[in-house]
Amino acid sequence: MTAPARVLDRLREALGDRVDTGSEALAAARADESGHAAVGIPLAVIHATSTADVQQTLRIASETGTPVVTRGAGTGLAGGANAGAGEIALSLRRMDRILEVRPDDLLAVVEPGILNADLNAALAEHGLWWAPDPASRAISTVGGNIATGAGGLLCAKYGVVRDAVLGIDLVLADGRLIHLGHRSVKGVTGLDLTSLVIGSEGKLGVVVGATLKLRRLVPGEVCTIAATFPDVRSAATASAAVTASGAQPAIMELLDAASLAAIHALLAFEQPAPRTAQLTIQTDGLQAAAEGDAIAGLLRGAGGTVTMTHDRAEGERLLAVRRSMHAAMAALGTTLIEDVAVPRSALPAMFDEIARIEGEYGIVIPTVAHAGDGNLHPNFVFDGPDVPPHIWDAADDLFRSALRLGGTLTGEHGIGVLKRRWLVDELGDDQWELQRRITAVFDPAGILNPGKVFAR
Amino acid sequence: MTAPARVLDRLREALGDRVDTGSEALAAARADESGHAAVGIPLAVIHATSTADVQQTLRIASETGTPVVTRGAGTGLAGGANAGAGEIALSLRRMDRILEVRPDDLLAVVEPGILNADLNAALAEHGLWWAPDPASRAISTVGGNIATGAGGLLCAKYGVVRDAVLGIDLVLADGRLIHLGHRSVKGVTGLDLTSLVIGSEGKLGVVVGATLKLRRLVPGEVCTIAATFPDVRSAATASAAVTASGAQPAIMELLDAASLAAIHALLAFEQPAPRTAQLTIQTDGLQAAAEGDAIAGLLRGAGGTVTMTHDRAEGERLLAVRRSMHAAMAALGTTLIEDVAVPRSALPAMFDEIARIEGEYGIVIPTVAHAGDGNLHPNFVFDGPDVPPHIWDAADDLFRSALRLGGTLTGEHGIGVLKRRWLVDELGDDQWELQRRITAVFDPAGILNPGKVFAR
Repeated sequence: MTAPARVLDRLREALGDRVDTGSEALAAARADESGHAAVGIPLAVIHATSTADVQQTLRIASETGTPVVTRGAGTGLAGGANAGAGEIALSLRRMDRILEVRPDDLLAVVEPGILNADLNAALAEHGLWWAPDPASRAISTVGGNIATGAGGLLCAKYGVVRDAVLGIDLVLADGRLIHLGHRSVKGVTGLDLTSLVIGSEGKLGVVVGATLKLRRLVPGEVCTIAATFPDVRSAATASAAVTASGAQPAIMELLDAASLAAIHALLAFEQPAPRTAQLTIQTDGLQAAAEGDAIAGLLRGAGGTVTMTHDRAEGERLLAVRRSMHAAMAALGTTLIEDVAVPRSALPAMFDEIARIEGEYGIVIPTVAHAGDGNLHPNFVFDGPDVPPHIWDAADDLFRSALRLGGTLTGEHGIGVLKRRWLVDELGDDQWELQRRITAVFDPAGILNPGKVFAR
Repeated sequence: MTAPARVLDRLREALGDRVDTGSEALAAARADESGHAAVGIPLAVIHATSTADVQQTLRIASETGTPVVTRGAGTGLAGGANAGAGEIALSLRRMDRILEVRPDDLLAVVEPGILNADLNAALAEHGLWWAPDPASRAISTVGGNIATGAGGLLCAKYGVVRDAVLGIDLVLADGRLIHLGHRSVKGVTGLDLTSLVIGSEGKLGVVVGATLKLRRLVPGEVCTIAATFPDVRSAATASAAVTASGAQPAIMELLDAASLAAIHALLAFEQPAPRTAQLTIQTDGLQAAAEGDAIAGLLRGAGGTVTMTHDRAEGERLLAVRRSMHAAMAALGTTLIEDVAVPRSALPAMFDEIARIEGEYGIVIPTVAHAGDGNLHPNFVFDGPDVPPHIWDAADDLFRSALRLGGTLTGEHGIGVLKRRWLVDELGDDQWELQRRITAVFDPAGILNPGKVFAR
């Protein structure tokens, strides 16, 4: 280890005013949107503007044994990009250029710091889009989406980040640059390191560029449905019936009673009847209307009260209820947003488990679910900055319930620091150790995002 | 290293009559459909019938330092599963059970030895299918499809193997069993080792089970189009125009003049005019007819002579021409089937390169292409069992041309032994070495498929 002052000198010498030690920047780099913050103050924030900046930073970090935490927009929900005492926070937010758009090859080459929504606004001019749509799309970067393997609302129909990246340019811990993947749709040369880097949460290298697989904008109208049900189990059962019918909604979101009540309070809407849960469904494409009618009929048969619109603006108003979830929770207190996923058929059973945990721990767990793909976000709300022990106990029970139902700890947010102690429960000791050793091949000295993901 | 006789004793003790040392079985295990055979005779073929058999075999191999070559149906095209002197050929062909089909969760759990076509016949009874469709689907196993990261004809619309596997059960080199991936659609716990194993050609472990992501059978009719063009460049340009139009055919296959002539000879059809090339296109789904009409119009505008049918049986007859390619080549001599892929827009340029190589080396290279995804199969035909040096020189030129156009050495067949000397040209030294080290984490003693993929 080199003395921090000497490391700073070397960074400044190489990177000039891209080295930021302002107290505001340092404080911001400690936290993300999880509510969790790292212990201590980072050494510096590097505002990289080029691949060469990233390589310089990594070379100095490597030579001096200084930890590096790569950050995008800081919207993570698992503490995966929080930088603590003595660490370099390497921000890629200013590397936000679109380098190439190829409508004929349905690909774009971008830098990692571009916001998902900004990219999609630019692609729309070509009649194209990049499908991954985390709820944070307006504020999260493509690089952050790749680092976490982000999902979103449209995944059941249009896939997750892993389905939408052809290649990655990666700077290794020692500053070398390698190019992973292909510009062609197919390609099986050696191991698929592109997929390995997606969702690796800053442990394998720094993503400085990505070749993205695009789609053409979906032609036709959209049809939006909001349906209320007397309780969450009947809403979950109805959503499972929609999936089982063979219909493929673009969006199918479920709000439980506590979520719906909190959102109505935030938006100053009339309160729904107690226990009321809601499904919001959107169909798209040339069959949108026919598919919407079929789904509406199915929901009514399952006991739902259905509102349907073919108007895009009115549809956005129906979806705005769902999109207000995060704000509604923030209004209640500090929130730990969980992220379990189960096989779709197990969604009603998972809601039963949540009700059981609420009873056993004497708490309310407002829950929203991407019902089309079995991904639930139970929200634990509490006072003060730190997660209280009984909330962790309830979360522990929640994770184990999801695993028992054939599910996973995290569908789209990642492990970060907040779930690292449960990772081994899902992977098993042998796979945990194997994954840790693979990480060490990329980063033998362990300077990349230490303490994240693989720390028990 | 333990003496071969002692290894055989231990295998027989553990596995009884699943140990096969018959000369026919040993000879068959040396070769695949590439025409290439390993040097020397393998020690034994193990006909595993259970995960426990595989674990026993790997434990003995590990303890005795004996190499293991995992095999499915032996239909590979790169020599990746050929077993040579002193090696154990571990056949999974008899592990062919479907363990679970879940229409509600759109997944199936299968053993690796089941044939792709047999699986799909069983899934059709549930209204489901597994989308990967290598041309070998009737004779290749799901495990082999996973090991090579197989593609096929329908990939541009319905994806490759990597898009269609949720989880893998893997036996490690030392016999331990680990479970990779999830039963849920989403899941980002740690590194994505499922994707890493797909296409890893037997270097990381033995796939003993897979949780497959299924699709519902596509409703609606199919529309099949055969269009002839005066030369291959105009056919390639027309196929690029189809892609650029936003149409999404399920199948779009291109046969160059030499291929078409050879197939017509095999089928005793009238010979087409010299230089004639053919596109065969199939649309499916509820928009099949409208999309077919639009494509037919576009092909006519591009100078094509178009035949179109909405009859499934007649459509199969049009596709039978394309499906006879492999047999037509085999009738000409020994064939080295190449497998480059380029960005779709580079397809015409790649055909120009093939014409240049034909001229420079004084050979004919009949070529078929999955035109919808830019994957070409140039066929080098020669006499005798071994690839002559001038053919390798021409292939070398072909590979370098594909890389120059932003493409790859292999779209769907893999590296095996036949392309290992070019792998570093595509990956670069740094990535090649990184991949080799990752392999060593899984298999420190290097007993899994030695000499394949990462051998220069």
